[in-house]
Amino acid sequence: MSDTWQECMDHCVEVTKTAGKMIRDALQKDIAIMQKSSPVDLVTETDQKVEQLIISSIKEKYPTHSFIGEESVAAGSTSVLTDNPTWIIDPIDGTTNFVHRFPFVSVSIGFTVKKEIEFGIVYSCIEDKMYTARKGKGAFCNGVQIKVSGQEDISKSLVLTEMGFKSDPEKFKTMLGNISTILSIPVHGIRSPGSAAVNMCLVACGAADAYYHMGIHCWDMAGGAAVVTEAGGVIIDISGGPFDLMSRRLIVASSRVIAERLVKEITEFDVGRDDTEHK
Amino acid sequence: MSDTWQECMDHCVEVTKTAGKMIRDALQKDIAIMQKSSPVDLVTETDQKVEQLIISSIKEKYPTHSFIGEESVAAGSTSVLTDNPTWIIDPIDGTTNFVHRFPFVSVSIGFTVKKEIEFGIVYSCIEDKMYTARKGKGAFCNGVQIKVSGQEDISKSLVLTEMGFKSDPEKFKTMLGNISTILSIPVHGIRSPGSAAVNMCLVACGAADAYYHMGIHCWDMAGGAAVVTEAGGVIIDISGGPFDLMSRRLIVASSRVIAERLVKEITEFDVGRDDTEHK
Repeated sequence: MSDTWQECMDHCVEVTKTAGKMIRDALQKDIAIMQKSSPVDLVTETDQKVEQLIISSIKEKYPTHSFIGEESVAAGSTSVLTDNPTWIIDPIDGTTNFVHRFPFVSVSIGFTVKKEIEFGIVYSCIEDKMYTARKGKGAFCNGVQIKVSGQEDISKSLVLTEMGFKSDPEKFKTMLGNISTILSIPVHGIRSPGSAAVNMCLVACGAADAYYHMGIHCWDMAGGAAVVTEAGGVIIDISGGPFDLMSRRLIVASSRVIAERLVKEITEFDVGRDDTEHK
Repeated sequence: MSDTWQECMDHCVEVTKTAGKMIRDALQKDIAIMQKSSPVDLVTETDQKVEQLIISSIKEKYPTHSFIGEESVAAGSTSVLTDNPTWIIDPIDGTTNFVHRFPFVSVSIGFTVKKEIEFGIVYSCIEDKMYTARKGKGAFCNGVQIKVSGQEDISKSLVLTEMGFKSDPEKFKTMLGNISTILSIPVHGIRSPGSAAVNMCLVACGAADAYYHMGIHCWDMAGGAAVVTEAGGVIIDISGGPFDLMSRRLIVASSRVIAERLVKEITEFDVGRDDTEHK
């Protein structure tokens, strides 16, 4: 079946390029009209259009495959992962960035077979960086192989995370407490680029040494998880256990030493699961 | 004298391009050797080389002009602003980003005459974006005129800041408290790109709506201040008074409404001044 998945991956790269172009075109237009009522959860017309484009293109070629897409799930579809070949799609990762034209906006697609990630594609479409990774075959950015920094000293690390949970005072406090704790280790710095998929790719290519997040979804993680793993990175659960695609949380690092140090520093909170919330 | 300053600006663009190339070349090499003992204040060989290149090139053409450069000041030079034509230089703004190859690294140069900024250049050299602005003549990115978003609603804003003061518990607490307060307004989000000059340019081109910072230096602000002002942005002191290049603090915003709202939300702390600390 190996060649079949390679064919899927090649098709995925092509459709991701088209999706990225659609996003760039949309950014040329006046985006004010696309802003919806909620200032935090910005769902744009482009987000839906791009997901439809991706799913219809793949469905035509692979009618028996399953899909988990951010917009489909928002519209009521399930997000339970099965053994069937499954495309996990975030049409625009970094929606807030998209609305502001902040330069980290990506299309993220992960492909699983028997619940394991077979390949992942993240296209940072403003930067025009296409990250690709297939299981056992390495990770690439625009065709050039990439590797994590290999950094093992947390005090020399650049750490990525995002600042959310504004509407939940307790989680908000814990989220800020974690930032405070990590800065005080100390680390070189914390950066918040605003796209989970791009964050994973920044660790994959050595531009950052770690990334942690609670509250993200499987479609934010699937593409980037393949990229960072194939680049030699470590990806684990925030509690230190194995990475679980449906768990809504992760630590990504350039080395196991840094990943495990972050496990010790971070205070967890409950963020639910992708495969129970939307049943 | 108008044409003289234009000639200075043209020369500045050329030398900044050369400096940017020098930085990109350095990033191709192994950077481990450039890391100094302090993990926070990373001063690299490249930083010094680039500043020497810029200053010697300008001195040759304009021997009577004054200079305030990050590396020269670190080496003991004064940073008192006089009426003399003065070049205020940050050879690498975003030194931590540089060490990690995180993609926001810039050369920043501001030029003052009688203590007023006449032009500013910020070259984000990994992104290859050259921001230029001359007093009264608009701001440009790679030759294309740029404008701020014009956003007046703080709750629809993307805000930039940086997380520092790890070694000063009281300021650290206030710094995190400010982030908490601003996130709770709420705003769309907070991003930390890691280069003050790039942050100002991101506001200038509408990719973010505001940026605030305490503890930066005149060489971090001079180039970007020209760019954001000429792009229609507002730049004021953190207390709400007029912007003071030597004050080590600023608020930059897409509109006066947002700038003044941030004045109300931010708790100040003492960061000293550039023109007294290094006398």
